[in-house]
Amino acid sequence: MVTRVSFVAGDTGGWEIEAIGAIRGAPLSRATRLARHEGPEFHSGPCVWSIDGVRSNDRYVTRDEKQRLAANQPALDRRDARLGALIPILKSDEWWALPQDERRAIFEERSRHIAVGLDYIPAIARRLYHCRDLGSAWDFLTWFEFAVHDRPAFDDLVGKLRDTEEWQYVAREVDIRVHRVA
Amino acid sequence: MVTRVSFVAGDTGGWEIEAIGAIRGAPLSRATRLARHEGPEFHSGPCVWSIDGVRSNDRYVTRDEKQRLAANQPALDRRDARLGALIPILKSDEWWALPQDERRAIFEERSRHIAVGLDYIPAIARRLYHCRDLGSAWDFLTWFEFAVHDRPAFDDLVGKLRDTEEWQYVAREVDIRVHRVA
Repeated sequence: MVTRVSFVAGDTGGWEIEAIGAIRGAPLSRATRLARHEGPEFHSGPCVWSIDGVRSNDRYVTRDEKQRLAANQPALDRRDARLGALIPILKSDEWWALPQDERRAIFEERSRHIAVGLDYIPAIARRLYHCRDLGSAWDFLTWFEFAVHDRPAFDDLVGKLRDTEEWQYVAREVDIRVHRVA
Repeated sequence: MVTRVSFVAGDTGGWEIEAIGAIRGAPLSRATRLARHEGPEFHSGPCVWSIDGVRSNDRYVTRDEKQRLAANQPALDRRDARLGALIPILKSDEWWALPQDERRAIFEERSRHIAVGLDYIPAIARRLYHCRDLGSAWDFLTWFEFAVHDRPAFDDLVGKLRDTEEWQYVAREVDIRVHRVA
């Protein structure tokens, strides 16, 4: 069975929201706390906003890339990873109309999404959730965890990705920065 | 917004069920009629069984394959297409653990899934729905429509696909044959 996640913004949750930056398109409303609920069911309850996703299969990685990621990717919930970021992204209809080979070429051969990400592990822990098939307002949610001293590296990573050809197909992006309180 | 489908088996619906064949794994219960509800929401109501899916982006096709499919693929609801088939499929965990390049190689370079399918259009109309990310018991639903005189061709098509390397990763498959009553 698929593993589900709900990111719930409101006044409870283990992460205090520092900033909600609208990178492209409509923003998300201000809230003080963020909770990440991962399990067999979506989480529902009172909130300012909530976004659901699922852990699913890889869509672009090759065997070699998958192995390099698996060998170096840190786990979530590291004791010293006091900072987090949730970045929901919606890509354009134009992106989704592209065939698989052209999406892959833009994603990696030309934008080096995986290669750039590999430069920042093991410092930056990352988990990708899919939501496009759920009929969500978003296509993906990426959750990151890192230490305070790796904040400049994280800013550098997202800055590099936002400069790529792939990001020309991003229709909406919000960058939610948090720190751990629990 | 995503387009949703619900295939509902019971005693109403525009398709009379002729046979429900369990090709691999657990069967589905017998019912007399099948309805295909496609729209912005899933359909709920009394039924013997119901399976939901969504229309989503292509996962394997190249630009060239996509164009050849688009140029030749017939629409659904052709007047002379009196027969239909619904084939829900679940692939194995082993399949989903493969990286994208290896799934593509098995799917097309070695099993020729797209090339074989192209040999049977424009006779066989086909629509693929995804359900893996919905937490379904199935990964895909494929719906076919064809004329009575193309039934041998359709049997030939599914027979060829079931002989491929790709099909070694099919964990469950049911083949529901119907004819149009409405």
